[in-house]
Amino acid sequence: MPIDPRAVIEVTGFSWVPPFARGLVRDYRVRWALEEIGLDYRTRLIDPRGPRPVDYLLEQPFGQVPCLVEGDVRMFESGAICLYLAERSDLLLPRDEAARTRVMSWCFAAMNSVEPLLMQLVEVDIFCKGEPWTEARRPGLVEAIRHRLDQLAAMLGDKEWLEGPFTVGDLLMTAVLRNLRHTDLVTGHGVLGPYVARAEARPAFQRAFAAQLADLNLKEDERIET
Amino acid sequence: MPIDPRAVIEVTGFSWVPPFARGLVRDYRVRWALEEIGLDYRTRLIDPRGPRPVDYLLEQPFGQVPCLVEGDVRMFESGAICLYLAERSDLLLPRDEAARTRVMSWCFAAMNSVEPLLMQLVEVDIFCKGEPWTEARRPGLVEAIRHRLDQLAAMLGDKEWLEGPFTVGDLLMTAVLRNLRHTDLVTGHGVLGPYVARAEARPAFQRAFAAQLADLNLKEDERIET
Repeated sequence: MPIDPRAVIEVTGFSWVPPFARGLVRDYRVRWALEEIGLDYRTRLIDPRGPRPVDYLLEQPFGQVPCLVEGDVRMFESGAICLYLAERSDLLLPRDEAARTRVMSWCFAAMNSVEPLLMQLVEVDIFCKGEPWTEARRPGLVEAIRHRLDQLAAMLGDKEWLEGPFTVGDLLMTAVLRNLRHTDLVTGHGVLGPYVARAEARPAFQRAFAAQLADLNLKEDERIET
Repeated sequence: MPIDPRAVIEVTGFSWVPPFARGLVRDYRVRWALEEIGLDYRTRLIDPRGPRPVDYLLEQPFGQVPCLVEGDVRMFESGAICLYLAERSDLLLPRDEAARTRVMSWCFAAMNSVEPLLMQLVEVDIFCKGEPWTEARRPGLVEAIRHRLDQLAAMLGDKEWLEGPFTVGDLLMTAVLRNLRHTDLVTGHGVLGPYVARAEARPAFQRAFAAQLADLNLKEDERIET
């Protein structure tokens, strides 16, 4: 769906981010879920280089994005928002109770059992780069990540998606895996590389990804990097 | 509720864990949710010192606990299971949509924005203790944790719980905060220390906690440590 300034649903994003974060800031997850189920949204963009808007921490306790506003509903946390949006359509969340609860398990697995480990490597390689502990930390962390990725891959096997059709569980899991795009741990993985590529090939992902980048207020010479 | 071997709901836990983990293994979160809403459960205990049961990774992709089985429903991830259980009762999840979705946000905030940071300190202090990177990593990590805890505390303020009555959001958030009980970062925090203490004083927590410890197959001299 195109972004529509009159849409009921508002999604908060950033108006600028440094190169490594372009295409990874978490509001694209919410945009992607909205595109998958065909709901219009409007955006509210915040410049992370300046102070947050007054009272923003009441909307997002940790100062991050995205938030979602829809009437009385005011949410934060991309995982929660995507699951909330998925609830209204069997396109992202099956109605059958056994299948629905499996997808819930995968949503939390992505956010609590996979992303935290992967984000530690993003800290080592990017956020904390050059700090005296990162070099000694990296080998053990990479080993733990490889093991976790292999466990996930064993569950996916040769299936296209984790539980039959594409669901919000796949949306969050592949979004989480994309955090390691600065390495070949996922892209070079025989099972998970193609899994993420299938997700990125979805038209809804591509529209969400393009819309997020288009909202970044990049100078001409910055645009080349994206 | 007492554990009932004939109960429909099965929760998987460990039959033994080392001292630092006693009272922290995540099946107590599920037991706690069950106690809050008054549902009987039976347990299936796995000894983590031996190999996992055949095909256990099909139940829990990462070899952890808890799993929940209830008829056709087969779940993993404590956050997902607690939210699933909370859905069936307004004792842990309000029916009003604005309130319900706030609680969903807090569930994911606990699992994705708070626990990962706190568990890094558990790795530094316990799991990876003595590794050459831990000493240099600790100060910056503690600083980040203090900041995150203060952000959370600002949202809690002088309220008893995060969103009016006690919810599954408080259950997961206080469970997550308990991971730092080997430090005074939470227990010594003016706002969050009392918040966790209020949660631990709930009869449902105490029953769940006692039931988990009672299921540990501890020798006489081990019992003293718990």
